[in-house]
This record gives sequence, C-alpha cells and structure tokens, in this order.
Amino acid sequence: MPTAHTVKRFDDELNGLKSQVLALGGLVEKAIANSMKALLTRDMELARLTINRDRAINALEVQCDELTRRILVLRQPAAGDLRFIISAIKVVTDLERMGDLAAHICKNAIKLEEMPIRPKAGLLGMSELVQQQVSRALDAMARGDIDLAMEVLAKDAAIDELYHGTYREILTYMLESPSQISPYIMLSNVAKNLERIGDHATNICEMVIYMIRGHDIRHVDHEAAAALLRGEE
Amino acid sequence: MPTAHTVKRFDDELNGLKSQVLALGGLVEKAIANSMKALLTRDMELARLTINRDRAINALEVQCDELTRRILVLRQPAAGDLRFIISAIKVVTDLERMGDLAAHICKNAIKLEEMPIRPKAGLLGMSELVQQQVSRALDAMARGDIDLAMEVLAKDAAIDELYHGTYREILTYMLESPSQISPYIMLSNVAKNLERIGDHATNICEMVIYMIRGHDIRHVDHEAAAALLRGEE
Repeated sequence: MPTAHTVKRFDDELNGLKSQVLALGGLVEKAIANSMKALLTRDMELARLTINRDRAINALEVQCDELTRRILVLRQPAAGDLRFIISAIKVVTDLERMGDLAAHICKNAIKLEEMPIRPKAGLLGMSELVQQQVSRALDAMARGDIDLAMEVLAKDAAIDELYHGTYREILTYMLESPSQISPYIMLSNVAKNLERIGDHATNICEMVIYMIRGHDIRHVDHEAAAALLRGEE
Repeated sequence: MPTAHTVKRFDDELNGLKSQVLALGGLVEKAIANSMKALLTRDMELARLTINRDRAINALEVQCDELTRRILVLRQPAAGDLRFIISAIKVVTDLERMGDLAAHICKNAIKLEEMPIRPKAGLLGMSELVQQQVSRALDAMARGDIDLAMEVLAKDAAIDELYHGTYREILTYMLESPSQISPYIMLSNVAKNLERIGDHATNICEMVIYMIRGHDIRHVDHEAAAALLRGEE
C-alpha cells in the first residue's frame, strides 16, 4: 500500500508537472504577444529575440515529456491522474507548435519590415481574440474549469470568421497592387498562423474536458459536447 | 510477479496497439494519395469521399488513445514498452493532423474544379516525395528501423526546397494573371499542406528513434542526431 509519504510525493510530482506545463504555456503566450507586437510596431529586434527564445520553448517541451515519462514509470497513475498525464503529453505538443507559429509570424515580420501593414484592424482584432483564447485555455487548464474551456471552444468560430474577413480584405489589396502580391501573401500567412494558434487553444480545452470529466470530445460538434456535459450536472 | 500468461497478454495488447496505429497510418496514406489524385485528375467524387472518410481517421485516433490509456492502467509498462506507448500517443496526433491536411487538399480541389492546375509538375513532384516520406516513416515505425527513420529526416530538406520552388512558380502565374490570384493562393495552400504533411512524417521518425533508442532528438539538428546515433554503434 502507498504510504502517506508516497502519496504526498506523488501529488508534488503531479503539481510539478502542472507547473511546468503552465510555465511552458506562459512562454508561449509571451511569444505570441511579442510576435504580433514585433509585426505591428516593426520592432525587428523583438522579432529576432522572439525567434531565438523559441529554443527555450522547445527545451521545456522536452523537459515536460521527460517528467511525464518519469511519473508514469515511478507512480503508475490511474483514473483522473492518468488522464491528467495523457492530457499533459498532448497539450505540450500543442504549446510547442504554437511557439513555432509565433516564430513564423516573427519571420514574416522581418520580411515585411518595409511594407505597409494592411489590414491592420483585421490583424489586430484577430491577434487580440486569439491571445484571449490562449490565455483562457491556459486558465481553464490551471483551474480545471470546464465552463471556461467550453467558452473557448464556442468562440473559435469567431476567430475563423475574422480570419476569412481579413483574408478577403488582403485579397483586395493584392488585386489593387499585383506587384505587392508577395508581401500580402506573407500577411495572409500571419492571419493563418493566428487562426492555427486559436485551433491549438481549442485542442487544449478539449484536453481539459477529457482530464476533468473523462469525455473525449475531440471531433464532436461543440454544441453536442456542451449538451453532453450539461446532461451530467 | 507477472506470469507467462500475463506477459503474453501484455505483448498481445502492445501488438494490438501497434496494429491500430499502423492501420490509422494506412488510412492516412490512402487519404493523402486520394487527395492529390482528386486534385490532379479533377475527380470531385473522390474529393468528397476522401473528406467524408476523414471521420474514420478521427474515430480511429480516439480508439488508439483509449487503447493506450487502458494499457497504461492495466499493465504499467516501463522502459522500451513505455516509450512505445508515449510515442504512440504522439504519432496518433500527427497522423490525425495529416488526415486533416489531406481533407484540406480535397476542399481546395473542389474549389479549383474549373481552374487550370499549374505548376502541375511542381505539385506532382512534391506529392510523390511526400507520399514516399509518409510511407517510409510508417515502415520505420512498423519495423523499428532507425536507419530508415534517419533517411526520412534527411530528406525533409528536399521537400522544403520543392515547396519553395513550387511556391515561387505559382507566384509568377499570379503576377501574369492577377484576376486568378485567389485560385492560385489555393494551389499554394495545397503545396503548403503537402509540406506540412512531410513535417509530420519527420515527427513520426523522431518518435521511432525515441522509441527504439531512448534519445529525444526533437529540436536537435538532424546531422548532429545522426552522429549521436552512429556513436552508439
């Protein structure tokens, strides 16, 4: 039988893993914010710094996965603890990818240094909503907050709409000045990167719901998932 | 102590999981091949069928993850078995995403139904190399073949080059006929989707190396990783 001491150490390890995943989330949040700031204020130094810092995100991903493996070996977790571990493995992959996408935005920012950034409003709107989604997904994970996770899932459609609007607006600029097609494609890539970051935020929320409730709602319509979860209360 | 009977059942379960992951890989391979065939031969029925079949890929992803969780609960695997399980969790995520990307190609194929597809050669070349990479990544996983995994990693640079060439070629078509910018952007998205599928094939190979050797070579330069692995032989 596990002693009280063993149980305490196990809890410490799980909390340690959670802290590391959230620390990774914090680095990723910062990278996204900096990438859009670098783009919109043409801060090339910030863009380069953010690209360099992606290494810290990668290193922390590897550390989190190693910690997960050690906990699995030493503690053989079950039930909710195991679901937390499995979620951590998935979430860490999403976070690392979000870091890559922020680095892509920075690379585009550097290429776009001399270029007028239009539509600024569309990108600003997307950027704000996406950052809010990421921050709320991480909060939902930190607090195990199902309602917040469901809110993030419900809001993803708004990001997709903003993306399509921004993309169409960029298309009109291309038609007006075909010689500028290439930089405008870079801008549309930035919009696409933001949209993908939003998708990863929803992946995190799906894992929060799996972790807390044990339902795997990936590939389930979000409204159906909400009804399923309400039915339990 | 585990009995011979228990060990046998554990091995059966691990083999069962491996078969399921490879079956998922088979569905994804087929989806990628069909998506490019649908695009290049304008087979809209095949495009729609492939989009519909993405649901089977999603369902198998969920099944694989559930099987993984059950093995972790019942068997508490260690060492190489645990690394296999962790790899399976990661690989399944990559495969599901590759399926999504194939479905995106199909959606673009449908939108491009009436449009001349240029540069056909560039897309064909990318498509063939990417399919070869995916197939070899799955072979490397099936056989635990480190050398094959390293070959796939080394070849990813060729896909990136093909992508950049294809993209630049598409750009010249846009400059020639700005009224066709929108369909050409769709074509460049297809090239990007193929390039991303190639990246996921390399992720699978990194997991094969982790599974067999215990080295986590993600975010390590591929040549440095090759030297590291040779040093052990």
